Amino acid sequence: MITDPHDDKLREECGVFGIFNHPRATDMTYLGLFALQHRGEEAAGIVSSDGKNLYLHKNVGLVSEVFNEEKLKHLPGSSAIGHVRYSTSGSSTVKNAQPYMSDYSRGQIAVAHNGNLTNARVLRDELEAYGSIFGSTSDSEIIIHLMAKPTYRAREDALMGTARRIQGAYSMVMLTENMLIGLRDPYGFRPLCLGKMDGGVYVLASETCAFDLLGAKYVRDIEPGEIILIDASGLRSLYPFKGKMIPRAHCMFEFVYFSRPDSLVFGKPVGSVRENLGRQLAKEHPVDADIVIPVPDSGNFAAVGYSMESGIPYKTGFTRNHYVGRTFISPAQSQREFKVKIKLNPVRAVIEGNRVIVVDDSIVRGNTARNRVKTLREAGAKEVHMRISCPPHVSPCFYGIDFPDPSELLASRYNMEEIKKFLNVDSIGYLSIEGLLRAAGARDNQYCMACWDKVYKCSVIDEMDKFGMEKQRRS
Amino acid sequence: MITDPHDDKLREECGVFGIFNHPRATDMTYLGLFALQHRGEEAAGIVSSDGKNLYLHKNVGLVSEVFNEEKLKHLPGSSAIGHVRYSTSGSSTVKNAQPYMSDYSRGQIAVAHNGNLTNARVLRDELEAYGSIFGSTSDSEIIIHLMAKPTYRAREDALMGTARRIQGAYSMVMLTENMLIGLRDPYGFRPLCLGKMDGGVYVLASETCAFDLLGAKYVRDIEPGEIILIDASGLRSLYPFKGKMIPRAHCMFEFVYFSRPDSLVFGKPVGSVRENLGRQLAKEHPVDADIVIPVPDSGNFAAVGYSMESGIPYKTGFTRNHYVGRTFISPAQSQREFKVKIKLNPVRAVIEGNRVIVVDDSIVRGNTARNRVKTLREAGAKEVHMRISCPPHVSPCFYGIDFPDPSELLASRYNMEEIKKFLNVDSIGYLSIEGLLRAAGARDNQYCMACWDKVYKCSVIDEMDKFGMEKQRRS
Amino acid sequence: MITDPHDDKLREECGVFGIFNHPRATDMTYLGLFALQHRGEEAAGIVSSDGKNLYLHKNVGLVSEVFNEEKLKHLPGSSAIGHVRYSTSGSSTVKNAQPYMSDYSRGQIAVAHNGNLTNARVLRDELEAYGSIFGSTSDSEIIIHLMAKPTYRAREDALMGTARRIQGAYSMVMLTENMLIGLRDPYGFRPLCLGKMDGGVYVLASETCAFDLLGAKYVRDIEPGEIILIDASGLRSLYPFKGKMIPRAHCMFEFVYFSRPDSLVFGKPVGSVRENLGRQLAKEHPVDADIVIPVPDSGNFAAVGYSMESGIPYKTGFTRNHYVGRTFISPAQSQREFKVKIKLNPVRAVIEGNRVIVVDDSIVRGNTARNRVKTLREAGAKEVHMRISCPPHVSPCFYGIDFPDPSELLASRYNMEEIKKFLNVDSIGYLSIEGLLRAAGARDNQYCMACWDKVYKCSVIDEMDKFGMEKQRRS
Amino acid sequence: MITDPHDDKLREECGVFGIFNHPRATDMTYLGLFALQHRGEEAAGIVSSDGKNLYLHKNVGLVSEVFNEEKLKHLPGSSAIGHVRYSTSGSSTVKNAQPYMSDYSRGQIAVAHNGNLTNARVLRDELEAYGSIFGSTSDSEIIIHLMAKPTYRAREDALMGTARRIQGAYSMVMLTENMLIGLRDPYGFRPLCLGKMDGGVYVLASETCAFDLLGAKYVRDIEPGEIILIDASGLRSLYPFKGKMIPRAHCMFEFVYFSRPDSLVFGKPVGSVRENLGRQLAKEHPVDADIVIPVPDSGNFAAVGYSMESGIPYKTGFTRNHYVGRTFISPAQSQREFKVKIKLNPVRAVIEGNRVIVVDDSIVRGNTARNRVKTLREAGAKEVHMRISCPPHVSPCFYGIDFPDPSELLASRYNMEEIKKFLNVDSIGYLSIEGLLRAAGARDNQYCMACWDKVYKCSVIDEMDKFGMEKQRRS
Repeated sequence: MITDPHDDKLREECGVFGIFNHPRATDMTYLGLFALQHRGEEAAGIVSSDGKNLYLHKNVGLVSEVFNEEKLKHLPGSSAIGHVRYSTSGSSTVKNAQPYMSDYSRGQIAVAHNGNLTNARVLRDELEAYGSIFGSTSDSEIIIHLMAKPTYRAREDALMGTARRIQGAYSMVMLTENMLIGLRDPYGFRPLCLGKMDGGVYVLASETCAFDLLGAKYVRDIEPGEIILIDASGLRSLYPFKGKMIPRAHCMFEFVYFSRPDSLVFGKPVGSVRENLGRQLAKEHPVDADIVIPVPDSGNFAAVGYSMESGIPYKTGFTRNHYVGRTFISPAQSQREFKVKIKLNPVRAVIEGNRVIVVDDSIVRGNTARNRVKTLREAGAKEVHMRISCPPHVSPCFYGIDFPDPSELLASRYNMEEIKKFLNVDSIGYLSIEGLLRAAGARDNQYCMACWDKVYKCSVIDEMDKFGMEKQRRS
Repeated sequence: MITDPHDDKLREECGVFGIFNHPRATDMTYLGLFALQHRGEEAAGIVSSDGKNLYLHKNVGLVSEVFNEEKLKHLPGSSAIGHVRYSTSGSSTVKNAQPYMSDYSRGQIAVAHNGNLTNARVLRDELEAYGSIFGSTSDSEIIIHLMAKPTYRAREDALMGTARRIQGAYSMVMLTENMLIGLRDPYGFRPLCLGKMDGGVYVLASETCAFDLLGAKYVRDIEPGEIILIDASGLRSLYPFKGKMIPRAHCMFEFVYFSRPDSLVFGKPVGSVRENLGRQLAKEHPVDADIVIPVPDSGNFAAVGYSMESGIPYKTGFTRNHYVGRTFISPAQSQREFKVKIKLNPVRAVIEGNRVIVVDDSIVRGNTARNRVKTLREAGAKEVHMRISCPPHVSPCFYGIDFPDPSELLASRYNMEEIKKFLNVDSIGYLSIEGLLRAAGARDNQYCMACWDKVYKCSVIDEMDKFGMEKQRRS
Repeated sequence: MITDPHDDKLREECGVFGIFNHPRATDMTYLGLFALQHRGEEAAGIVSSDGKNLYLHKNVGLVSEVFNEEKLKHLPGSSAIGHVRYSTSGSSTVKNAQPYMSDYSRGQIAVAHNGNLTNARVLRDELEAYGSIFGSTSDSEIIIHLMAKPTYRAREDALMGTARRIQGAYSMVMLTENMLIGLRDPYGFRPLCLGKMDGGVYVLASETCAFDLLGAKYVRDIEPGEIILIDASGLRSLYPFKGKMIPRAHCMFEFVYFSRPDSLVFGKPVGSVRENLGRQLAKEHPVDADIVIPVPDSGNFAAVGYSMESGIPYKTGFTRNHYVGRTFISPAQSQREFKVKIKLNPVRAVIEGNRVIVVDDSIVRGNTARNRVKTLREAGAKEVHMRISCPPHVSPCFYGIDFPDPSELLASRYNMEEIKKFLNVDSIGYLSIEGLLRAAGARDNQYCMACWDKVYKCSVIDEMDKFGMEKQRRS
Repeated sequence: MITDPHDDKLREECGVFGIFNHPRATDMTYLGLFALQHRGEEAAGIVSSDGKNLYLHKNVGLVSEVFNEEKLKHLPGSSAIGHVRYSTSGSSTVKNAQPYMSDYSRGQIAVAHNGNLTNARVLRDELEAYGSIFGSTSDSEIIIHLMAKPTYRAREDALMGTARRIQGAYSMVMLTENMLIGLRDPYGFRPLCLGKMDGGVYVLASETCAFDLLGAKYVRDIEPGEIILIDASGLRSLYPFKGKMIPRAHCMFEFVYFSRPDSLVFGKPVGSVRENLGRQLAKEHPVDADIVIPVPDSGNFAAVGYSMESGIPYKTGFTRNHYVGRTFISPAQSQREFKVKIKLNPVRAVIEGNRVIVVDDSIVRGNTARNRVKTLREAGAKEVHMRISCPPHVSPCFYGIDFPDPSELLASRYNMEEIKKFLNVDSIGYLSIEGLLRAAGARDNQYCMACWDKVYKCSVIDEMDKFGMEKQRRS
């Protein structure tokens, strides 16, 4: 009976953070995770190191629910990594929360990652055949098993070897007793940034908004295929894929929806990219109307862009109720309707009698969008024109985003005319793939847009949905 | 160590809701309070009636914290009233939560009110002298004592007599075993609206946004000085102040800050009024700049208005972190700085290199505003021009708003030049009193603007701050 | 689905505590309530005074659940009173928790009482007719209303007058800003003791076990009909019933079951009285058997006495599971059986093959006793002889004990032969009324034994069950 | 600031439970753990199997805190195992709670054990050298790693091989998708019993008191060195140590303190053994006195035995406060004193003027015992003679009991005369080793009494305290 604030949205993925040699490493990590909370609302965890031991606390819940002063106090030391994660409904257990921490022959290690290995199943079967046991279904545990292979002579060999065995999308932070490690897949699917605080303290984070909060300066992105090692002697890098020809595949959806607008992602300011998407959308799908309104907050920037390009005034057409959190219970049978209205209520005085362009970032199943349109019409909209700042979603993501089954995606079920009818809008306009690339300022195509164009740059070895493993156990 | 999301804001006041003869009265009241949550985040309560008995549950916390399915189930019946309230820090106890419920000679009665009686102390002393005992410092309890006087022959006499004894600002709902009552002071300080659901079910609420959620139609405001009685025989009114010449004194700050932009308040759409305030502000305080940004969400509408009037583009200059709730702990010494930055982070790509006009609804102590300016400058703003969509706050409110002591108000401590310096802005502009009236579309002055102009239309009999009573007990 | 650890037992009544002029008054009260917890498990509360104001915290739950360090810290001052209370199921709300605290013309006052007024209904109706309003159904509120009557010239008049108006059983503590008051009904139904700590600090408590914990010395009982006033000038007494001929009526069941065995009650050590009851029981109902076992812990002392008198060895025949608290859930359909067995498991090696005398303090409905016998037989008892250390319960208590309806009492439904059959015992023996008096060392009859002999020494004015008031409201 | 109800007691060890093919397997396991709660108060867990998957829930806390109806509902299936555990203070984390559950090449497996491997460190180092990673410091995880070795052809080989590799004390239950396994070390340190419910359902438990609650019949002990397999085809056994000469080493302290008196342990009724210990104690250490009192509840049976043998009357000398749980806060500086007195208060009427023999099961550090003596003297005891129903504790246990460091043990710090002085008793008497054996009915010495006689029958390979591993990690 608990509503999900992101109801008909794509599930977010994950966020990672790391810091080395700061007197209040755990506090900084807590704050960093707070800034990254939008990347994962279901579980949070921190591992700290005092140079001799690692200390872990993780649980399901928001960062503010998982941690309190007492818990933070029990994570001593001057280095730490942290993680926020989404979770598919039903499997929201502590068991799969991250970071994953382990002992092995070289001491202790903790791993937190963002992304999805596409050969996880193969690796796991192989490891089990050689006697490994698994306490979770997390990719992080696979990675530690690979690191622990007795054939590696040194930790750096283990890192290089492990990176070469795993495939798919990953941006990862690791912590040992005396080293912080960052690691990004050679395609560069997910972001991972390096920052620097006063006093030369290095931090790693999925997005730069975490740096802003801590007063850290953005230094650069961890390069695709780079392993960065941060310890008492400073910072150095390993390149396990040197000389390999591997295409870039930055997730375009980070720009469209996932990342925070105040972050730099893949070197670009997200908010500005979104404004450009709105401008491009106005060029591709102009319409004669009275006002442009965003679906807050995900459509805010694109709506501003649309307004600027079109010259049609930007208005605040919805009021957002900030109190609708995870504990809101909807006591009514007609639960869905209340849920949609309680979160966003149209401002009648703005809407009434007007031809309204409503800008949102994307449509998944379409039910929420349809209900929004209904509430706009009830508020007196003369016309409703929906504009979406990305192409239609038609295909699954194997690189870390938890889409619904393609058969549930609005755009794979219906053509444009049917979508218009389903949503009951006067017109519908999605951004084109070309327009998206142009607005994002892409030179040649360094992006993964598989959910729209079905081009999967990294091969998907596991046929089954990895997250289905818990249910379909071998007999 | 718990941060207040409204930190340097004025404390909100209260919200009331009532419904009569609906099969799911308690559920509707729960939803209604949800829509009114912004009017009081500290405590919530519902009293229901099944025609024979009243049932109460109230506690400190948000609506979603105070109630769950179990609690709602224990509030049976087809009529209910509800209340959300703010509370001065430290006295946030169940004791003063509302509704206040009592037995008296006529049966049971529950009262929930929004506002502040200005002769509470006098009434209380008088009642105590005649033997009354008080379990709370709530005005509601005084009202029930007055209603219980054995000299009244009938309930309607009691209501009329009570209304004539109390002074100050109040919008009130009452519930007896078989009647819902609404009551508004003759000045009309606080809003109170009548709505109607399908099937002829009447609802009362502080703001119409509660009606939108429930699908109720706005019928009209309860008139200043009107008592409305809703029971099985329908709806009728009493007018205890008929023939009396009492000035109107609608709280202007409801438009500026308190009410939700999607509500009709005093018959006007709040969002549109706010947009007008922004337009007027642009006329009074123009400045050559590159962008207009709001302090979200309270400055959103006024910033749109400023942008439209000035032609300077509207931009989303801050990202709001929606996860900063009451459980966020700030583990740092430099707590204040993190608090300011964690809630709103400037979008560097929008701000950098630009001359920025930042629009907010009001300034109280000025500390938060100063910190905002600091973060804008750190994000690269070339100039920062602050525009405030109301006049400078200089005087206390005795009608239900919990201002800090005048000696703490920025505008009563400093002149404009000093304020500019204190905030470190390139220019500062407050809306004028005349501009505010004009923008709000006021014909003659039906508004209370005492916090700005020190004109107190209803005499303040109690000299002491009523909310100080708990601390300064007579010896 | 929550089990009650006292399942088929009589509901306990209440416990009160007070302390004046101790630097850690609230802490001492917390500990005192802990020692009195057995008198009321459903709610707890403390009011403290710092000489100027009273501070209250109360809630449903055990003392350890209601209070924590934080809560205690918010109860400043050097005087305090406290209360633990039982509550009839379903009405376990904060509203009726005690102490009850109020403002009135003389300042602030808090009242906590143990007992039951027998003219509460009459007083309440009269007060309501004169305009009083009631926020609870507690006797304490009635008492404050009476105290607040404007006709009293001084506080002492108010106390004397109030004591003369109320009837029934009460042992009460009151706290004002600068005075601690103790008050006991002229019949002396419930205990109330005066103690003294080092430094001349006076304490009041229902039982002396609270003094033991604090290191206070027992001084004397508050006399029936005495009002004791403790303030900065020391200790003095008022005697509102001087010269009146009122019979003594100490509750005999305090000895049999309620009070802790380490307490002095009505001037006698409870444990020794219980041992005597067991000896007398052995004289009245001897039987040839192998072992004597108690139902722990309520039968422990009487079983020792029975063993000593009879010469039959005392054995520990049941193991008590101390973890069965209020949060134990019984997941089974056959819930009752698990509940009985999980609390007390027979020790087979002690029971098997033996003729067993099992000693308990009382039987109410008989279901738990029957189940105990069943488990003893399953554990191999050859014979089971039940001995009860009081007479059969046949009549309700109007003086503060929450009996089930007489129609549910085993002894009012069945004669001895039928009881034997119902319980499936080889013999049953209840202590006689004469034996009980003799064993308790009563000279002439100063005791109330109405639940056994139907002699109600104080007239019962309210016909209805006072605790039924909440449900049967006047229309 | 939270008191431990077992303060100066030895930490309890663990309890295990298992059930196969019962329609309400999880509920039965919950009840079974409730009966075994005394063996471990710090954490609890259940794993269930529905034939295809295993489901786990575990957490720190009492059984009643860890589970509720909701949690039990999420553990479906007809087989289950459960565990209760103690935990050294500070390391009370979910990570080390049991059962431990894992995936490996043969599917899923869960393990819960009671005891302590004495070669855990060696095994762990070896496993890590071969690439294993460890998520906990639990012995259970080592066992699963051993089971997962790819060299075993079948599950039975894995079980036999694993049993032969591990050393020390263990009584263990395992659950796979379709089999329940019980396993006991060849020394027989810890108890493990087989029971049978109606319908032929088999259950395993540490103590038979769990069977009593469920209505299961005790069948027999799992033999030392036996592996019992329970699946759809019934029950069969493996004997990995067949032909090996391994001495018996039943933990004598199970009789003295750990086990519940209503349990059969090592085939003997615990309560009867304890009574015999008391009789023997009276023979070895007679003294002229007036009364014998137990320290409840651990001294109850021995005190009865002492009384019977000596002819000195048994009395209930202490009242136990059952409300002193883990949430009791002691607000006083003089915390220790309140803690001792709040838990057990002497019954003055029993103690005063008497020469008192007080019987307890054991003394560890001696602080609590000393405080008890002090309270007896304050209650008026003329003489205090302490009798302890086991020999003096002088040496650590490596087989699963968490003793304090030997340097903190009273009997290893002082000789008898000094102990007498330290405790301030008139005489002190410990049971002799020979007397203990005789009273326990031991033919030849099948018992481990290493904590008293320093004879360690199973070699202790790990030099370091296993539970210190978390702190002293290799660098």
